[in-house]
Amino acid sequence: MSAKINVGVIGATGYTGSELVRLLHHHPLAQITAITSESRAGEKFSQVHSAFEGICDLPLIKSDDLNTNNIDVLFFALPHGVSMKFAEKFYGTKPIIDFSGDYRLDSSKTYTDWYGKEHTFTTPFKDAAYGLPELFASKLKDSPLIANPGCFPTGASLALAPLIQHNKVDAQNIIVDAKTGVTGAGIKASAVNMFSNVNDNFKAYGIKKHRHTVEMELNMERLTGQKAIVQFTPHLLPVDRGILTTAYLKPTGSITEKEVIELYREFYNNQPFVRLRNSAPEIKQVRGTNYVDIYATHDVRTGNIIVVSAIDNLVKGAAGQAVHNMNIKFDFKETKGLNIVPLQP
Amino acid sequence: MSAKINVGVIGATGYTGSELVRLLHHHPLAQITAITSESRAGEKFSQVHSAFEGICDLPLIKSDDLNTNNIDVLFFALPHGVSMKFAEKFYGTKPIIDFSGDYRLDSSKTYTDWYGKEHTFTTPFKDAAYGLPELFASKLKDSPLIANPGCFPTGASLALAPLIQHNKVDAQNIIVDAKTGVTGAGIKASAVNMFSNVNDNFKAYGIKKHRHTVEMELNMERLTGQKAIVQFTPHLLPVDRGILTTAYLKPTGSITEKEVIELYREFYNNQPFVRLRNSAPEIKQVRGTNYVDIYATHDVRTGNIIVVSAIDNLVKGAAGQAVHNMNIKFDFKETKGLNIVPLQP
Amino acid sequence: MSAKINVGVIGATGYTGSELVRLLHHHPLAQITAITSESRAGEKFSQVHSAFEGICDLPLIKSDDLNTNNIDVLFFALPHGVSMKFAEKFYGTKPIIDFSGDYRLDSSKTYTDWYGKEHTFTTPFKDAAYGLPELFASKLKDSPLIANPGCFPTGASLALAPLIQHNKVDAQNIIVDAKTGVTGAGIKASAVNMFSNVNDNFKAYGIKKHRHTVEMELNMERLTGQKAIVQFTPHLLPVDRGILTTAYLKPTGSITEKEVIELYREFYNNQPFVRLRNSAPEIKQVRGTNYVDIYATHDVRTGNIIVVSAIDNLVKGAAGQAVHNMNIKFDFKETKGLNIVPLQP
Amino acid sequence: MSAKINVGVIGATGYTGSELVRLLHHHPLAQITAITSESRAGEKFSQVHSAFEGICDLPLIKSDDLNTNNIDVLFFALPHGVSMKFAEKFYGTKPIIDFSGDYRLDSSKTYTDWYGKEHTFTTPFKDAAYGLPELFASKLKDSPLIANPGCFPTGASLALAPLIQHNKVDAQNIIVDAKTGVTGAGIKASAVNMFSNVNDNFKAYGIKKHRHTVEMELNMERLTGQKAIVQFTPHLLPVDRGILTTAYLKPTGSITEKEVIELYREFYNNQPFVRLRNSAPEIKQVRGTNYVDIYATHDVRTGNIIVVSAIDNLVKGAAGQAVHNMNIKFDFKETKGLNIVPLQP
Repeated sequence: MSAKINVGVIGATGYTGSELVRLLHHHPLAQITAITSESRAGEKFSQVHSAFEGICDLPLIKSDDLNTNNIDVLFFALPHGVSMKFAEKFYGTKPIIDFSGDYRLDSSKTYTDWYGKEHTFTTPFKDAAYGLPELFASKLKDSPLIANPGCFPTGASLALAPLIQHNKVDAQNIIVDAKTGVTGAGIKASAVNMFSNVNDNFKAYGIKKHRHTVEMELNMERLTGQKAIVQFTPHLLPVDRGILTTAYLKPTGSITEKEVIELYREFYNNQPFVRLRNSAPEIKQVRGTNYVDIYATHDVRTGNIIVVSAIDNLVKGAAGQAVHNMNIKFDFKETKGLNIVPLQP
Repeated sequence: MSAKINVGVIGATGYTGSELVRLLHHHPLAQITAITSESRAGEKFSQVHSAFEGICDLPLIKSDDLNTNNIDVLFFALPHGVSMKFAEKFYGTKPIIDFSGDYRLDSSKTYTDWYGKEHTFTTPFKDAAYGLPELFASKLKDSPLIANPGCFPTGASLALAPLIQHNKVDAQNIIVDAKTGVTGAGIKASAVNMFSNVNDNFKAYGIKKHRHTVEMELNMERLTGQKAIVQFTPHLLPVDRGILTTAYLKPTGSITEKEVIELYREFYNNQPFVRLRNSAPEIKQVRGTNYVDIYATHDVRTGNIIVVSAIDNLVKGAAGQAVHNMNIKFDFKETKGLNIVPLQP
Repeated sequence: MSAKINVGVIGATGYTGSELVRLLHHHPLAQITAITSESRAGEKFSQVHSAFEGICDLPLIKSDDLNTNNIDVLFFALPHGVSMKFAEKFYGTKPIIDFSGDYRLDSSKTYTDWYGKEHTFTTPFKDAAYGLPELFASKLKDSPLIANPGCFPTGASLALAPLIQHNKVDAQNIIVDAKTGVTGAGIKASAVNMFSNVNDNFKAYGIKKHRHTVEMELNMERLTGQKAIVQFTPHLLPVDRGILTTAYLKPTGSITEKEVIELYREFYNNQPFVRLRNSAPEIKQVRGTNYVDIYATHDVRTGNIIVVSAIDNLVKGAAGQAVHNMNIKFDFKETKGLNIVPLQP
Repeated sequence: MSAKINVGVIGATGYTGSELVRLLHHHPLAQITAITSESRAGEKFSQVHSAFEGICDLPLIKSDDLNTNNIDVLFFALPHGVSMKFAEKFYGTKPIIDFSGDYRLDSSKTYTDWYGKEHTFTTPFKDAAYGLPELFASKLKDSPLIANPGCFPTGASLALAPLIQHNKVDAQNIIVDAKTGVTGAGIKASAVNMFSNVNDNFKAYGIKKHRHTVEMELNMERLTGQKAIVQFTPHLLPVDRGILTTAYLKPTGSITEKEVIELYREFYNNQPFVRLRNSAPEIKQVRGTNYVDIYATHDVRTGNIIVVSAIDNLVKGAAGQAVHNMNIKFDFKETKGLNIVPLQP
């Protein structure tokens, strides 16, 4: 028991916050010491997330009342634009794992270009690590702030990385057609996430301008040092959670189905959360888990390569990847607390 | 009343058959005279489709008992491989509007290549008309058999046609990422359409080999006389009906957003079922109707053109388009019986 | 054409308003002349309800700008508490069909008891007619204001009426367990109708205190002149529309299954929208229509009678019943504009 | 490791079988040693349940090839009528926990009355224990066969027990209106569980004759020694899993809300899987868990008591309760392997 690290959760009224609490509740080497909420302080966590009644009844406190002395790591389960304020407050005191988009990009300028607002606390950019462990693990252990990846970039980058890194496909002609569950839009009620606007419906949104586009491009550039261009189109599924990504790629030279498969096998060898599939994956088969299921195939008729990946946007695309990052940072086995069987059906 | 034409429906136990009966029930110039079913003959139509109780209680008869003398047009609401048998029986007696894939392609050889079976009655190929009125209306009136298009090719071809016909994009580099409701898989219970395999789930299927691929390619070739290559990936949505098609195209030369929009406006001028949208369409906004909603846009950042279309696979993608074809054949106003308001929500 | 009556729709940003426009669009003897909205005046109807683009693009106007001279009937598609304000403005000028709960009950006192607010315009109570045509048709033609019934009371009252009116069951021991689609909660986004709170979920709500309880009790009392007691429990279904009502009743004397069935057959003889079913009804089989499907059965083992009814809450439970009331008021055939085939699937 | 007991799973192609494997995978004191399937023997478990790829890839074997020497307990994840055949084979060799209805009732005669078939192996009836631990724990430890309760009787009996056992309500006038997810209908594809027959739909079924009726009545009689009569009506929800039970009861004497609440608090004191709620429960708040959430209330206006309970039919209603029974039988802490946070959303 005494071996457990103490975790502080900053902001826990959203879906990624509750998912983080769900995962940490089962973690054998970590325990939640404090949960903050500016808007709901004074209430129990289980009053905000009623499913947790009897499971996590911790009181929510104001972040000003958080004593970081007995905290080993802080998770920021916050939206973009908000994290930077708390980073200003806590940066340097304790390791931070940040769920927002505030420190995922390469500079505050890029941030402003795509997020349309000024960045008010840029210090962490220099040392922040981008927390996609299968691709960029080296900086995670020592960085004071881990920027947890966006949900779409996680699914897309893991689908694309083997081919891009080995220059097997044209990095400037990447098409990413992704489909996400509704929780990606957050917990605040709006026309976007109303049942009758989502049920029996399906649509594209954010065409040409979704913020995750640049994050995907930067990830590909991190792999090769060369500019990447991604045409990214997200769509809204009538499901709670899950992202299916279908990517279309142009080979730079001749390549066979067998070579594609072998490339992925080698690239993701020993990665505990990557499942390479023999047929197209389904989002329900990763539901509630940190798995990414990937299927890559070459079409001899058209010459294209098609890659499909499936993740749970709240786990591998958010809270699960954050716990994975925590495990790496604290030298825990990568799968600690994340050995979860999909809830199917 | 006496002015109504008499319709015979061959095969009515499936979804497209019941949808056809729904539409014809409201049609001011047509009436259903007979409905056949080999498997359920002797029962009422409303025993097979219980929602029709008190609305259409016609007895189902064997096709051998069908008297075509008092029939003006036959609809084949049949799957591929079955239609050809009934075509052998009825071809030349009365005009046929066929829902199957048996006469959509350019030859029995192409049929065998993609459908994997021999064609047993090839006579109609010579004179069959492909019934996508917005693109290929000329032969409809005089042809003895109208091959009603596939659902995916309908949504995709209407999305692509203006750009392809005017050679504005590379016809050999077309990506069609489509998402369909479950009714596209038919009414027979199987693992594919079980609730718990579909609900909260999403997946790609038929990657690289779906039969509708060649139908799309042939449609594009009909427009230009030149070979087209389509990378088509269908996906299965947890909804009953609706197809959203997202297409990615490479311009052959410089083009502006405004030119793209203008091109579509001119191309579909006066088409009563095409709604050009200012933002990405949604499948629920065409539910139950014969509309196709289309949105086309150019991405100056990437150079790509993205086109999104939405149809109801059972209406515009099947029974509604069939009624549209009937209207044209009998010189009715195109919208007769098809002036339907979407059921939303 | 000139024979059409002119309809004014007061308030059209909600679901019942858009459903009313959907139904009137098809009506052969009525046309919408004006639609008002205080909050969205100046926009087109199709900007509020995007599915109507190209179908109904009427401009929304302020109610102050409504010229009632060329209007034959006013529909109030408004929530309770708001209708009374517009009633004050328009009462007596033109016939009103009011969707709200403001004039459904027997007095302003009962209203205040159950709706928890003062009634500010009580004049119409004296002459208002309760618009459930199968049960209370006599006053509809001459009343200046028809109070269109609540959705739950419609489904429940039609299920109960034959047995209650003939004193076959204990009117003071009625259990109504009802399940509704989400549109019953209105179009305003809130935690109640968020996708992720409704999808895969199911719950009871408003136990012991739902306002529709008293409306059901009053309806039963209108039939017999005696006090009725209803235990009403609504539940929220993960569907857009539809109410299934399961009622449990205690026979006052011995009764057989056959007698129950015969009672319903006689009671609803010639009612065009009542379908008596031989097995338990399903909400999808009435979707989009004005039908009420009813199944009544006696359990010899327990002695209870169970009645199940299915309606579409937006049609039979709101806009369709309102059009039915209009048809009666204007001596149109009852089914005019309401001959709709269910959208199934 | 060596402390783990060895579990044999007989029949694992259904939902309750896969759910059992999900739960046992996480169990710290049990491990799955063998899984049998007559129809899929030779394949891996993960070929039948693809979500388990990389998680449980055990080969399925024929039950004839099962070596029970190194097995400590057998789970029968089988339907009724099949379990009795395997009971004949394995009864007495090792403890059995049976998911079917074959040994839940008080005699083979009652079984034949309600299940409509002869019982072919009646020996276990004498010593079988009914495995609903919160109500009937005493026989579990020593019985050679535990009959795991039906899903509906679990939700209903736990809702009713406190009031029935204390004779606070009329045991011969119990109304149980229950609503279940689709997985209750099993994994075999049929019209009943097809997506398009379930999605957007809702219906009652099995009215007056569902087999779980007698199981509920027997449970109530076990508590009081007196005959009980239950009017049970199940309904089918468009969700995968979950049962919400709404029960209506008539008090035998005067009772207050406070007394009702206190009665439930005392009755379920220290029961780790019972959560008494202050408002109506929701099925999604117990999803994936062994919890039963209960809310009981008295309506002073009508005199009735209403009790609502929520369970996950595959966990508390099947596999979770089975693991709970195993824990009791082997003197493990009751919650071992069952400390699960609901998957919400």
